[in-house]
Amino acid sequence: MTDSTPVTAVGVDFGGTFVKIGVCRGAELLETDEPISTADHQGPDTLIRAMSECIAKLRSRHPEIKAVGVGVPGLVDYDRGYIHVLTNVPGWSHIPLRKILSKQIGLPVTVENDANAMTYGEWRYGAARGMKNVIGITLGTGVGGGMVLDGKMYRGSHFSAGEIGQMSIHYDGVSGHYGNIGALEKYIGNQQIAEHAQRRYAQAGRHKEIENCAPKDIAAAAQAGDDIARQIWDEVADWLGTALASIAWLLNPDAFVIGGGVAQAGALLFDPLERRVKSMLSDVVWGALKIIPARFHNEAGIIGNAALAADVFGEGTPI
Amino acid sequence: MTDSTPVTAVGVDFGGTFVKIGVCRGAELLETDEPISTADHQGPDTLIRAMSECIAKLRSRHPEIKAVGVGVPGLVDYDRGYIHVLTNVPGWSHIPLRKILSKQIGLPVTVENDANAMTYGEWRYGAARGMKNVIGITLGTGVGGGMVLDGKMYRGSHFSAGEIGQMSIHYDGVSGHYGNIGALEKYIGNQQIAEHAQRRYAQAGRHKEIENCAPKDIAAAAQAGDDIARQIWDEVADWLGTALASIAWLLNPDAFVIGGGVAQAGALLFDPLERRVKSMLSDVVWGALKIIPARFHNEAGIIGNAALAADVFGEGTPI
Repeated sequence: MTDSTPVTAVGVDFGGTFVKIGVCRGAELLETDEPISTADHQGPDTLIRAMSECIAKLRSRHPEIKAVGVGVPGLVDYDRGYIHVLTNVPGWSHIPLRKILSKQIGLPVTVENDANAMTYGEWRYGAARGMKNVIGITLGTGVGGGMVLDGKMYRGSHFSAGEIGQMSIHYDGVSGHYGNIGALEKYIGNQQIAEHAQRRYAQAGRHKEIENCAPKDIAAAAQAGDDIARQIWDEVADWLGTALASIAWLLNPDAFVIGGGVAQAGALLFDPLERRVKSMLSDVVWGALKIIPARFHNEAGIIGNAALAADVFGEGTPI
Repeated sequence: MTDSTPVTAVGVDFGGTFVKIGVCRGAELLETDEPISTADHQGPDTLIRAMSECIAKLRSRHPEIKAVGVGVPGLVDYDRGYIHVLTNVPGWSHIPLRKILSKQIGLPVTVENDANAMTYGEWRYGAARGMKNVIGITLGTGVGGGMVLDGKMYRGSHFSAGEIGQMSIHYDGVSGHYGNIGALEKYIGNQQIAEHAQRRYAQAGRHKEIENCAPKDIAAAAQAGDDIARQIWDEVADWLGTALASIAWLLNPDAFVIGGGVAQAGALLFDPLERRVKSMLSDVVWGALKIIPARFHNEAGIIGNAALAADVFGEGTPI
């Protein structure tokens, strides 16, 4: 690994609405192109073509680009660069993306789950740089996760590891998408936080429209001194903290790195979260454990995927 | 790895009451010696000396012995072969066991947590042989665990990984030993099963002494057609299954291998456990997942520790 001269690579952050593409050298985002709207394309064929054209354009300005890393919101076979299914993007199932894309652009390609790529970026260049065992978590509409264990990306037996949002925090709780009772995501997803907040306000005799109960609204209210809003963050922290404590008992990691929209609440979330997790662990497991905000935000996907592709196909740490 | 000629090693199963020592060649237990009672020794000095004498005796009959693996019920620093503390064995804290023992016997020594060693043995020679990602679980007074991930023993950042019994299955449940709310162990440990059974019988107007509510009694009652006993096993399966489903979402393993006294309930536990775990997973995560009883029972500690030491110091898979 020669950090002094990182390989230049393209990172592709394939989201439900936009595909964002940029050029990175290590943690440095050199250039991004206009996002591609997924709605402008009927299916994979023209969207992949648009990605290829964008990458070709970036490459004309950065001929040193050595590889392309694509992160997608769904289940992939990392070894084959094959997309099983992207739940929120119509038409995207059974797509051998690596094969198609690398043929069109003439560069090697990685295809990775988005939460894995975010975790890789934070471990390689971000908040958890160089740590041995790192759990990355994204808090948003859903709750995603990725893991670097013993210094390597851990993907599980069928590339499905890291589904932290599907873990149970209550054996007799709310049912998740897969019938998984007590699924964390059903407590602290964006929409679930909003609905919970609306209920808490109603209990206190205060009516709030659901549009005004988004996590950012509850964060603003708490910062303005609203006790109910603060209490809601404490509850969110208790739910998330229960899952993190379980993961800590199981994996004894160095750090949890937390990103995504809900993490923008900052100390409102992180302070009670630290208290909760600490209260549930032994001194040894808590001892050197860090719970830290992600370094990268909107650019996390581009940087993480570029870093992974650069390391796999460049001169970095193969993973 | 040459399975045809496994290295011969000594396995030491250091329990709270007895230290059991045997000689193994692969999965084959060649000879065991009389167990050493921990109560016969005031502290580590004479007990370690007794272990050394036993090993020397076995070695006189098996001169091909190449290494010794010791498994202990507590927190160890595997890299240094150092015991931090054995909670249930008085006087055993801060003991550099590898250093002392290897000096006395003139052989290389590994010191490992007992649940890790059990898992290693099942992965190397037992029910989960050759699988890539394996979670071992022991069900008894407490609930322990160990993990082989990506084909290697996973120990965590401070050798504390695998504490499955401390994971939470209820964010507002019963408090565990470390203040960890909803700790699995507080639902399905031996004593907790007995207490729960006594309550269930009382609710049905049937008084049972706690001595008659041990897991083996409840298993016998269920086998004899007692509906309440069967219901108790279903509840134990729901609690354990909730934790296993969470681990499956997080780690996407090939198998859970379950041993220990409570696992002797067999199908009474495993049938509802399979149903519960399956009901909480996606097809991909459940798909190739196996929930299997351990192959090794009373000899699991001896075989697992001998296998580990043989692989580390012999010609097997270093781990």
